[in-house]
Amino acid sequence: MSHHVYKKVEIIGVSEVSISEAVANALAKASETIRHIGWFEVVGTRGYVENGKPVFQVELKVGFRLEDNA
Amino acid sequence: MSHHVYKKVEIIGVSEVSISEAVANALAKASETIRHIGWFEVVGTRGYVENGKPVFQVELKVGFRLEDNA
Amino acid sequence: MSHHVYKKVEIIGVSEVSISEAVANALAKASETIRHIGWFEVVGTRGYVENGKPVFQVELKVGFRLEDNA
Amino acid sequence: MSHHVYKKVEIIGVSEVSISEAVANALAKASETIRHIGWFEVVGTRGYVENGKPVFQVELKVGFRLEDNA
Amino acid sequence: MSHHVYKKVEIIGVSEVSISEAVANALAKASETIRHIGWFEVVGTRGYVENGKPVFQVELKVGFRLEDNA
Amino acid sequence: MSHHVYKKVEIIGVSEVSISEAVANALAKASETIRHIGWFEVVGTRGYVENGKPVFQVELKVGFRLEDNA
Amino acid sequence: MSHHVYKKVEIIGVSEVSISEAVANALAKASETIRHIGWFEVVGTRGYVENGKPVFQVELKVGFRLEDNA
Amino acid sequence: MSHHVYKKVEIIGVSEVSISEAVANALAKASETIRHIGWFEVVGTRGYVENGKPVFQVELKVGFRLEDNA
Amino acid sequence: MSHHVYKKVEIIGVSEVSISEAVANALAKASETIRHIGWFEVVGTRGYVENGKPVFQVELKVGFRLEDNA
Amino acid sequence: MSHHVYKKVEIIGVSEVSISEAVANALAKASETIRHIGWFEVVGTRGYVENGKPVFQVELKVGFRLEDNA
Amino acid sequence: MSHHVYKKVEIIGVSEVSISEAVANALAKASETIRHIGWFEVVGTRGYVENGKPVFQVELKVGFRLEDNA
Amino acid sequence: MSHHVYKKVEIIGVSEVSISEAVANALAKASETIRHIGWFEVVGTRGYVENGKPVFQVELKVGFRLEDNA
Repeated sequence: MSHHVYKKVEIIGVSEVSISEAVANALAKASETIRHIGWFEVVGTRGYVENGKPVFQVELKVGFRLEDNA
Repeated sequence: MSHHVYKKVEIIGVSEVSISEAVANALAKASETIRHIGWFEVVGTRGYVENGKPVFQVELKVGFRLEDNA
Repeated sequence: MSHHVYKKVEIIGVSEVSISEAVANALAKASETIRHIGWFEVVGTRGYVENGKPVFQVELKVGFRLEDNA
Repeated sequence: MSHHVYKKVEIIGVSEVSISEAVANALAKASETIRHIGWFEVVGTRGYVENGKPVFQVELKVGFRLEDNA
Repeated sequence: MSHHVYKKVEIIGVSEVSISEAVANALAKASETIRHIGWFEVVGTRGYVENGKPVFQVELKVGFRLEDNA
Repeated sequence: MSHHVYKKVEIIGVSEVSISEAVANALAKASETIRHIGWFEVVGTRGYVENGKPVFQVELKVGFRLEDNA
Repeated sequence: MSHHVYKKVEIIGVSEVSISEAVANALAKASETIRHIGWFEVVGTRGYVENGKPVFQVELKVGFRLEDNA
Repeated sequence: MSHHVYKKVEIIGVSEVSISEAVANALAKASETIRHIGWFEVVGTRGYVENGKPVFQVELKVGFRLEDNA
Repeated sequence: MSHHVYKKVEIIGVSEVSISEAVANALAKASETIRHIGWFEVVGTRGYVENGKPVFQVELKVGFRLEDNA
Repeated sequence: MSHHVYKKVEIIGVSEVSISEAVANALAKASETIRHIGWFEVVGTRGYVENGKPVFQVELKVGFRLEDNA
Repeated sequence: MSHHVYKKVEIIGVSEVSISEAVANALAKASETIRHIGWFEVVGTRGYVENGKPVFQVELKVGFRLEDNA
Repeated sequence: MSHHVYKKVEIIGVSEVSISEAVANALAKASETIRHIGWFEVVGTRGYVENGKPVFQVELKVGFRLEDNA
């Protein structure tokens, strides 16, 4: 019996609107090059301050299935 | 002198809108069966990807006071 | 050659709207007394429940550059 | 061959006297509803301040054996 | 739109054969009383020694969906 | 609507009697200079040995509300 | 004097038999595309439940030496 | 009233068969020199790769009672 | 110039009175065989329940200076 | 009997030479404004890259004794 | 409005001279294949012993900006 | 087939020069009494301040192979 194998990569999305939008931005970018994205895990939330307001930098791990012939 | 005792349970709320809404959804559900909910702690944020967008799954611990005769 | 030195303090912002707004509220308050705020790190998210809805309390560390003659 | 299975729940005891008494208070309350309590693990110690003195809130996990027909 | 809410409980399975069997034993017991078990997470592995051999005690969190009318 | 903002500082109390007294000693000292102390969190317990007996050094974070015009 | 440099990637193996087999499955897949695999570290063990039995998903970091001209 | 005191040491067992066997191997070796072994805690699982297969190195803490006159 | 080197060992003290007494009991025992004990760090607090009351088991690391000719 | 109370603050030193020099730089700066500095703890090491070389940013907590009349 | 997205990879540098040189060696190697390296985080320091002296293996995460059309 | 078993002990080296030298000092001392030292892991870096300069105290775990007849 064969089994899938998955891989996780760590990316960081940015948003001056919200933490949730930073996650969405990161996933939109990741989906340009990664197929079979399955899930994500937020592993850190930081940011810098611009004009007194937060710009969120959200670190996430993105998990995806490796293709069977790779 | 008597003292209150509290309990914590771990629940997971879901939202495709935002992390904050996932917290609210979990608390709304929890309040159907738990009385005296006092506070919550976010202990994890993950999710899956649907049509290229995040669906947030937020894990929280919910603390509440145990009733005196229980 | 001289080097900057930075300091971090831990503050907690509150919002009944969202986690992101709690961060913004904390930073707005911090900027009243801290100059040269550079970055922040979210180190905890908790809250209490009011009328069945979450009030978010977000703990963050705020980093800023120390002035050269201080 | 059969094996026991155990469960852990998370409770919080309170005392203005000491951390150790807060643990004892929590266990006394837990034993009203839980049979076969076996052990506990302290997972957090916090509290609030009343008249300049600490009131201890000690979080513990309480482990107990599940009954065989449950 | 409605969303499911999930709950996690912490249980401990035992086996003198292997860590994996201890997980299976815990899940078999949990499924007697919990419906809709979805996933588990191993959060600790310990044990005692009997006749020079390990008896594994594996702590896991078990996640399951709450029923809609509960 | 306005929101309070809180700050946490990290202090260490000492006692040769007990961990709980070390917490009390730290809070008594902190209250000399900090107003609006709200809560504390024990983040570490260590100590040294004097005449074969422990002298407890308990690290705690102390949270307090920032004044509105500060 | 030159030094090797190593890289770590995070993959997830699956097995319905055991945690150890899930590790082996992940390494077999990884060795299809990675040369010079040196070591691995288990960083998480979770899984889902199928017909009342665990299917193990074991997360591991795999370390390998980077080739000198890459 | 007298009390027992316990000690923990950290050892690493090896097996090319399974994680559980690596634990057993470590305990068999430890029992050659340690009396009163009581329990163990798995604190890390890593390994190297030999012929494409894992060789498990499992780190465990072993707890044992100190003899009364030692 | 020569430097001291220190070692840490992990021991567990027991008390049915308090966490602080369990620390003292462990240190009293350790000082029977260890010279130059310098400091300790509490790394865990657990226990079992006897007649509805806690018996504390406090894990501590004990640091001491190695003798120069050892 | 009176006891000292200590405080910890978190600062970040910078050096393009070494991690150890970054610590020294931070302590030199801290000693301009803090009296009775006693110890430090390194809690993080990061940095940025300039002309292909690391510039170290070392986060440390600095502990110092509070004056008796403060 | 568009936002950059960043990625982190985990590499390990080696040096028999110092921890800081191991970081520099890892970054020199990484810059051969990664453009836009921005920052690094030390996540572990270990090593082996050769002729009684340490050879440092420093694990770091290296962050870099993803190109806009990738 | 027989397997080696390894043990880890925790020691602390000191240096007023650098963190790396503190590691080397600890290993030089450890090699006086431990044979078959294989590897080390840095688990903490702290120190005290003397004349405004850091004296580094680096905690490491040292791993070594147990002899076959021990």
